[in-house]
Amino acid sequence: MSSPSATPNTYPYQNEPTWSRSEKAIARTAFDAALGRELHEVIQEAKKMASQIQQSSDLWDLEHYLTERRKEIDRTYDYRYSRLTHVFGKLLYEGRLREEELRGLREDKLNSIRSVAQFLAKYAA
Amino acid sequence: MSSPSATPNTYPYQNEPTWSRSEKAIARTAFDAALGRELHEVIQEAKKMASQIQQSSDLWDLEHYLTERRKEIDRTYDYRYSRLTHVFGKLLYEGRLREEELRGLREDKLNSIRSVAQFLAKYAA
Repeated sequence: MSSPSATPNTYPYQNEPTWSRSEKAIARTAFDAALGRELHEVIQEAKKMASQIQQSSDLWDLEHYLTERRKEIDRTYDYRYSRLTHVFGKLLYEGRLREEELRGLREDKLNSIRSVAQFLAKYAA
Repeated sequence: MSSPSATPNTYPYQNEPTWSRSEKAIARTAFDAALGRELHEVIQEAKKMASQIQQSSDLWDLEHYLTERRKEIDRTYDYRYSRLTHVFGKLLYEGRLREEELRGLREDKLNSIRSVAQFLAKYAA
């Protein structure tokens, strides 16, 4: 590995792709769309759970559901370019993102993202 | 203080009143009634908050509200006889319990409960 200080404008980590301006725009849109859909889903479920509360255990079930969803969303939606292929792979695998939404990313990135999705599918099987 | 082992059937702590069977029944009923009212209030508020959720911040506000209420309820509703005068004093002070609901407790207990309520009112002022 060459010394980063010798080539200060070169991305210092091997195997981590750089993201062009247009790719960043595509990534941001896809990321926000998936997050928006997930939040919408949680909001709908919370409204439904709340409307059906009859006793205190239902109340604390709702609290627990919200806490777990918040933690899971915080863990999943990590918008660092070093993490994005993993994030998109996970979202693809979970059916929260369609591959078309990533159209315009470079083929090597798409392959990495697909690999993550396939790995997770295999791991879950 | 006399040795508890010398008088094994005597309540071993000074200044802590014993609770007769009828007092225990009154205490349990009053305690459960106040807790039931408080839970009902939280359930109604949660349903209202949930029905008004429009964006994710409203969702996490609901989670935060539920967590805080659960912790506060857990702290307040402590059904140990050694804690009950304090619990009832706090509930009286907060208007969550009416003094009539404690009718039948011995006067010394009622005085202790009123003292706690008065102390909290003074402390809050």
